[in-house]
Amino acid sequence: MPKWKLKVEYKGTRYSGWQRQDGVPSVQQAIEEAIFAFCQQDIRIHAAGRTDAGVHALGQVIHFDLDYGDRPLTGFDLVNALNAHLRTHTVSVTEAEIVPDDFHARFGAIKKRYTYKILNRIAPSALADGLVWHVRRPLDVGLMQEGAHYLLGHHDFTTFRAAECQAKSPMRTLDVLTLEKIGADEIHIHAEARSFLHHQVRNMVGTLTLVGERKWKPIDIKTALEAKDRAKGGKTAPPDGLYLVSVTY
Amino acid sequence: MPKWKLKVEYKGTRYSGWQRQDGVPSVQQAIEEAIFAFCQQDIRIHAAGRTDAGVHALGQVIHFDLDYGDRPLTGFDLVNALNAHLRTHTVSVTEAEIVPDDFHARFGAIKKRYTYKILNRIAPSALADGLVWHVRRPLDVGLMQEGAHYLLGHHDFTTFRAAECQAKSPMRTLDVLTLEKIGADEIHIHAEARSFLHHQVRNMVGTLTLVGERKWKPIDIKTALEAKDRAKGGKTAPPDGLYLVSVTY
Repeated sequence: MPKWKLKVEYKGTRYSGWQRQDGVPSVQQAIEEAIFAFCQQDIRIHAAGRTDAGVHALGQVIHFDLDYGDRPLTGFDLVNALNAHLRTHTVSVTEAEIVPDDFHARFGAIKKRYTYKILNRIAPSALADGLVWHVRRPLDVGLMQEGAHYLLGHHDFTTFRAAECQAKSPMRTLDVLTLEKIGADEIHIHAEARSFLHHQVRNMVGTLTLVGERKWKPIDIKTALEAKDRAKGGKTAPPDGLYLVSVTY
Repeated sequence: MPKWKLKVEYKGTRYSGWQRQDGVPSVQQAIEEAIFAFCQQDIRIHAAGRTDAGVHALGQVIHFDLDYGDRPLTGFDLVNALNAHLRTHTVSVTEAEIVPDDFHARFGAIKKRYTYKILNRIAPSALADGLVWHVRRPLDVGLMQEGAHYLLGHHDFTTFRAAECQAKSPMRTLDVLTLEKIGADEIHIHAEARSFLHHQVRNMVGTLTLVGERKWKPIDIKTALEAKDRAKGGKTAPPDGLYLVSVTY
């Protein structure tokens, strides 16, 4: 039975997250229903990362097995068919290809890239409602970048881990944490790792903004990390600004 | 009486355009009502450009006179107050300053910059609904840029002018028409001129996509321009992709 790998983009605002849950809309359910509408098969799909409520994706990756009989089915056809059934959703399938049987969207991932977008100005955004974190206080990007350096590498990230995180170990290796100024008033924070703890990116961003506001010094990030205590970190940044950008296999 | 100059951002999707019209929502009405809610004065505002239904702005400029008595009013206060009253709209005031009495948002403009955004891929956008023109057929940006060169300079732009255009002369000077590839699948077309004819940018974009699809050769743009006949141009690109980016005085 062919195994399909799909790249998926979504605006997470109106979903309770990736994962299917009773009684609330999820991205997983939207896609599984589109597959059912297309081929009348009840198929369970697997994603690289289970994004939280309100979090977006530009390059979520999913896989599933699909028996389409002897009829030919191209990636082009599958993309078009699923998007036709996703028309009422803010979910779009951007690529589809058949992959080897042993491919697994979650367990096969060797790198994930997230980007967190901050709109740093007085006025709210007219165009990106739900798609950025609006921070009114001016942020010093240079200081934030200095603080971010202390988080790179292999560490116990307990300070930046949600209480409900189910990972066995708080140890993670952060390969990239880079701040980028976009135009006059946007700040993009790029983070790459093999895997992240629950809320890790949002907790790192929330803590770095304390440095950006000059409430903390950059070195305070190191102190917070070494405390291995969630209470020593800053608040969790809202989901609005977070994007799962890409997954590497 | 102090004259205020405001910079305004809006998502135009749900408005019938900039200009106030009976019975339909307009950006002008939204801002005039916010001013009234703030200071109980019925004030008529003037914009640099009257954008059409569905067209967006990152840097629309408006002016109006406001008698606020002897009380001090800073730009910061005015931005915050108006945005508080615009909360249910996709309109945001990003800057406000007092300008000399002879400032006029429309007649004083010496340059306007528009950007037109095309999403060029099979899949629709999950994140930018109403904010890009989705073109499924692959576009050759190099050929489009070649065609665009023929439109630069001082010309009779009748071929790219809407039938309902009220300008006295079809002569315009196009200073910039540059195509930019953004990431894997976006194309941004930047246009600058002192002023534009009605639908000029959208008609130029619609015609250039014929070149991008290889239905036309780049030189056909020159032929179309010289025909001075709207029927010889391509179709009007939808408003979704168009942004008034900035106005220079």
